[in-house]
Amino acid sequence: MSDPVAELKRDVAIANRILASHGVLDALGHVSARSPLDPSHFFISRSLGPEPVAPADLQEFTFDGTEVHGDPRPPYAERAIHAGIYAARPDVLAVCHNHAPSVIPFGITDLQLRPVFHMAATVGEKIPVWDIAAEFGDTDLLVRSRDQADSLAMTLDSGRVVLMRGHGCAVAGATVREVVFTCVYLQLNAHLQLQTLSVGREPRYLSSGEIERATTTLLQPLTQERTWTTWSQRITLPDE
Amino acid sequence: MSDPVAELKRDVAIANRILASHGVLDALGHVSARSPLDPSHFFISRSLGPEPVAPADLQEFTFDGTEVHGDPRPPYAERAIHAGIYAARPDVLAVCHNHAPSVIPFGITDLQLRPVFHMAATVGEKIPVWDIAAEFGDTDLLVRSRDQADSLAMTLDSGRVVLMRGHGCAVAGATVREVVFTCVYLQLNAHLQLQTLSVGREPRYLSSGEIERATTTLLQPLTQERTWTTWSQRITLPDE
Amino acid sequence: MSDPVAELKRDVAIANRILASHGVLDALGHVSARSPLDPSHFFISRSLGPEPVAPADLQEFTFDGTEVHGDPRPPYAERAIHAGIYAARPDVLAVCHNHAPSVIPFGITDLQLRPVFHMAATVGEKIPVWDIAAEFGDTDLLVRSRDQADSLAMTLDSGRVVLMRGHGCAVAGATVREVVFTCVYLQLNAHLQLQTLSVGREPRYLSSGEIERATTTLLQPLTQERTWTTWSQRITLPDE
Amino acid sequence: MSDPVAELKRDVAIANRILASHGVLDALGHVSARSPLDPSHFFISRSLGPEPVAPADLQEFTFDGTEVHGDPRPPYAERAIHAGIYAARPDVLAVCHNHAPSVIPFGITDLQLRPVFHMAATVGEKIPVWDIAAEFGDTDLLVRSRDQADSLAMTLDSGRVVLMRGHGCAVAGATVREVVFTCVYLQLNAHLQLQTLSVGREPRYLSSGEIERATTTLLQPLTQERTWTTWSQRITLPDE
Repeated sequence: MSDPVAELKRDVAIANRILASHGVLDALGHVSARSPLDPSHFFISRSLGPEPVAPADLQEFTFDGTEVHGDPRPPYAERAIHAGIYAARPDVLAVCHNHAPSVIPFGITDLQLRPVFHMAATVGEKIPVWDIAAEFGDTDLLVRSRDQADSLAMTLDSGRVVLMRGHGCAVAGATVREVVFTCVYLQLNAHLQLQTLSVGREPRYLSSGEIERATTTLLQPLTQERTWTTWSQRITLPDE
Repeated sequence: MSDPVAELKRDVAIANRILASHGVLDALGHVSARSPLDPSHFFISRSLGPEPVAPADLQEFTFDGTEVHGDPRPPYAERAIHAGIYAARPDVLAVCHNHAPSVIPFGITDLQLRPVFHMAATVGEKIPVWDIAAEFGDTDLLVRSRDQADSLAMTLDSGRVVLMRGHGCAVAGATVREVVFTCVYLQLNAHLQLQTLSVGREPRYLSSGEIERATTTLLQPLTQERTWTTWSQRITLPDE
Repeated sequence: MSDPVAELKRDVAIANRILASHGVLDALGHVSARSPLDPSHFFISRSLGPEPVAPADLQEFTFDGTEVHGDPRPPYAERAIHAGIYAARPDVLAVCHNHAPSVIPFGITDLQLRPVFHMAATVGEKIPVWDIAAEFGDTDLLVRSRDQADSLAMTLDSGRVVLMRGHGCAVAGATVREVVFTCVYLQLNAHLQLQTLSVGREPRYLSSGEIERATTTLLQPLTQERTWTTWSQRITLPDE
Repeated sequence: MSDPVAELKRDVAIANRILASHGVLDALGHVSARSPLDPSHFFISRSLGPEPVAPADLQEFTFDGTEVHGDPRPPYAERAIHAGIYAARPDVLAVCHNHAPSVIPFGITDLQLRPVFHMAATVGEKIPVWDIAAEFGDTDLLVRSRDQADSLAMTLDSGRVVLMRGHGCAVAGATVREVVFTCVYLQLNAHLQLQTLSVGREPRYLSSGEIERATTTLLQPLTQERTWTTWSQRITLPDE
């Protein structure tokens, strides 16, 4: 495939399905990618559970949440999360918002989610927690406006992961595959950290130097290709 | 389908299968719906595990537990739970009784099950626990009589969820889909609350205002349609 | 089927498969049934993992472990467990030996496994733990001789369940279906009890009266038929 | 099959798939076997997730990591782990490196992983932990050089299992089947030990004598054949 938009849409569809099969996405999360043709646009599925998402379900949005082709199908209310992060972070080309269960406890306590094993190094050393109530008071916890999304993006700062109190998290990266990779091991790391803490032990975390070096290794094409190929091997998109 | 009874029976059958696939229903729970033609009747499967339930398995009962069409197939002993809740709550049009594992610990301790993330807002702020022994002494814990069911419904009060000590819970709602939605996230919320407590932390719960606002959002057609469609997409009823 | 032996062998084969699908049996446990023709004989599979067991794999043994038809296929080393229990308990017509993971912690600590919800009432009020080392010193922990099995059966006493320290458990009952039922809910109850204890709470256990009444209910044909039918619906034996 | 290399390659491919289906291997672990024709060579898959590994994916390496047939397909970076263990341990004919989740907590705390039930006896009495940082400082935690692998092999010493801090473990054995067996029960034992510790109890561990005797039993052909056959029964390699 030499059409970069078609290839990207295919990756976004597969990403939704991989993350659903790993239990990272339930019926209500989503993955997006910045347009390779116009960096002020991004692609994301119409309002749909993640498992059936196909390239034809993707819509194209500006950062104010407007669909640019007049697609009448209802969009996700929380596409603002993606818009806010793309607007604040030119280096980010893909985003996932999810409610991965093992991540939730770190958003509702003072426990800090930190990498305990090398595969999770890309989550970064200090994962911030954004509490929508701090700035916006009582809400339904959904991030619906650019104001809210900009606040979230400010807490994300220059990292890959930001937790959302009582809600889930947002994960940003330079490629769809990097975002999927980080989501999978973020969830597993959270599980391992909880398991260790549940037996009354404080884990030894990776050092800053280890996080930096392991991140470099994990983002190399060979690793990224191996995990993506392994996770996508049982996925068949319609019309393929 | 323009036949409201046929459509409702189909939803009840699918609800049984969705909740079985989520581990909410084991071999012994059930879902019912109030008749749209006669509000003093409700539909529920004959005695059957939840996975194979099809529309043709549904029977129609009065609130004293009598099958109205003379269907000779054995009914559930605990249809009284449904009768008692429908009798006490005209606003309730669907009910589920289940033994979802992660909910059980909250019925046998002083831990109060409360929403820790937005998807679980519909479970309500304070989930009561009904102990059959308080009024009826040593029993087999099944709710077999209207007396017992009326007592359970009184503890349910105006909420959507009531826990049953050493047994499970009952979940009530305005639609079959709302009940399925609440059951799925009740179970997940219980899991997350236990996980957080197991590392010695008290979770920050949703505020009253957040619960109210999130509930409104979650019960909107778009959310309800998305979850139902996602969860039912792999389910095929016989003769469809 | 009017042949009681054929019907029983079919039930034993299905029981192995149900318990494998529930994670109660791993590659190394087994189910047996006393012969309806000769109460001093029992049927159990030849040495085989539980998932592929078919009626043709069953062998017939005396209580000293001799195969009565000269079947040359290797038997289970631990068939002695079954022999010892049948010899000591004329009321027992079916036995399962398994290593269900959630049961193990109760055999290696002073925690007492007790029913916390009604579905587990058949496990009984006080589940004893048998430690092979107490009488036989350092062994490979397998129960290979009638001496060892008789000691285990003495600890089982008149109950349905006995835990084996550092090994697993044995479950006895009046029918294959009752044994399968007790195994499934024994495992789930152990999980729920551990989960409750892990958040620092002592569960409220069922009372003696509740255990007695719930056991009577659970062993009624309607309940037994419903669980068995639900759990076996996706199982197809060869040549059926 | 009378070709020992073909048979061994088939076992390595099946081993990868068994361990993937048990959750021992995620997208990034691997199994190898020493060549029966040249004890200074070993077979391991080219860089590939474990589920699709087939005999044709195996490459043959010397202990300095050179592929001996000029196969141009990219190899695993961590084939050094295998080389180091084979070089140090003439008795070892098969190795697995994996990131089994339940094992991780024992590498990042002072908790010692020890067998709590008989099936895990082959993991040995005292499982050492190797910390790459002790000798090599900040790294990406991958074992890429023979220096690092030799250090790991020295910590493994004469045992079957060595944990790798913040990374995973390496498991060595006399056959591919023994390694698969040890990996499966190592993971389960770690889970059971964590579960027991999470309720505030110290498990009673197997005694030295029990470990020795149970190991002898578990490595007998009958047990090894039963587990391997059970776990591999649903696996079909390409062209079979």
